[in-house]
Amino acid sequence: MSCRYDRPRPGLAVDCVVFGFDEADLKLLLVERAMSPCQGHWALPGGFVRIGESVDEAARRELREETGLAGVFLEQLFTFGAVDRHPGDRVVTVAYYALVKLADQRTRPATEARAATWFPASKVPPLAFDHGQILQVALDRLRGKVRYVPIGFELLPPKFTLSELQHLYEAILGRPLDKRNFRKKVLAMDLLDDLEELQRGVRHRAARLYGFNPRKYRRLVKQGFNFEL
Amino acid sequence: MSCRYDRPRPGLAVDCVVFGFDEADLKLLLVERAMSPCQGHWALPGGFVRIGESVDEAARRELREETGLAGVFLEQLFTFGAVDRHPGDRVVTVAYYALVKLADQRTRPATEARAATWFPASKVPPLAFDHGQILQVALDRLRGKVRYVPIGFELLPPKFTLSELQHLYEAILGRPLDKRNFRKKVLAMDLLDDLEELQRGVRHRAARLYGFNPRKYRRLVKQGFNFEL
Repeated sequence: MSCRYDRPRPGLAVDCVVFGFDEADLKLLLVERAMSPCQGHWALPGGFVRIGESVDEAARRELREETGLAGVFLEQLFTFGAVDRHPGDRVVTVAYYALVKLADQRTRPATEARAATWFPASKVPPLAFDHGQILQVALDRLRGKVRYVPIGFELLPPKFTLSELQHLYEAILGRPLDKRNFRKKVLAMDLLDDLEELQRGVRHRAARLYGFNPRKYRRLVKQGFNFEL
Repeated sequence: MSCRYDRPRPGLAVDCVVFGFDEADLKLLLVERAMSPCQGHWALPGGFVRIGESVDEAARRELREETGLAGVFLEQLFTFGAVDRHPGDRVVTVAYYALVKLADQRTRPATEARAATWFPASKVPPLAFDHGQILQVALDRLRGKVRYVPIGFELLPPKFTLSELQHLYEAILGRPLDKRNFRKKVLAMDLLDDLEELQRGVRHRAARLYGFNPRKYRRLVKQGFNFEL
């Protein structure tokens, strides 16, 4: 006896909250919806899960198709399953969040979406569906996560200054941090390599460049740690 | 223009990892599957999401129908979306985990499942589908969570001894803890109320009873904390 389930099924979608950091601001990548419902509104890149692909594969495919991004950090965030979250149809969405080094990536507007555009995370336009709520959950996750995972690794270029690292944490946490205290705590974590190199092409006094040590990073991710800022 | 999605849809299910604590052991609640596939195998309580209910509601309904449990701590865990996780059909499942005070609850075998039975979390029979993997993710979440949320609140009766609290942490973490060190750290969190009462009806020397302070608990949940054991 088989128990294939023949009752009406909710639609199943994926949506991606894509964060980037441009050395000053936390950014969010949005697409303009080409189709109804919510045509012309800004939305998270996403779409329906196909019957022959895993949910993770669907998230990577939609991200690639809608924004051109591939090979980025992508992690499942939360599944949003309210009955009325999508007008006119029952759609449950599995939300993901992606972290993108803006220094590395070029995003291109793709076929399905009219345009993929970076917005400052603090100045996001009204979003389609419950995407505003999904963004809030992603921001909360990111804020929680920086306390016990050195997440900057995914958002900063290979070489960065301590000021850039501090700006990243300030942008994520949404509040200024004390410079001396921040440096002391970051260096105490013993996660950074001093690259013994100075910034080039800056007008102000060139700052020292650092990089994440991948070995120490993997150890810290495994062990967890507590980075109170 | 509507864009109702008419392509084949994956089935959407919920599954619940139900943890309990009986003052010595971490327990897991399983049901015996009455229907194929995997008939006769032990499985997590769960079932399909109906078109008119939210995913959260589906999890609460299935938990109630299959185990008789209601009004317990229930939180979304992770969504499992591999293509081959269910034989013969494409089913994506949103997994939840529940924490149950065994001292409070009576579970009854219900209509849909043949029997709902508590197993020690360390001696679980082979599980249907990918439920073994789901259990592992839930255990990892629980182990991670005790580091920054006073989760014992959901698993212990209103009055408990420090030994019982220590046994709970030992059961979750799967390793023995040093008694003196544990007490020192727990009391330093300033989360417990000394109830100025002693255990009754025990053969050994009666121990002091404690309770969680709900106000301090809510504050700690909001702030987060770091409880390294």
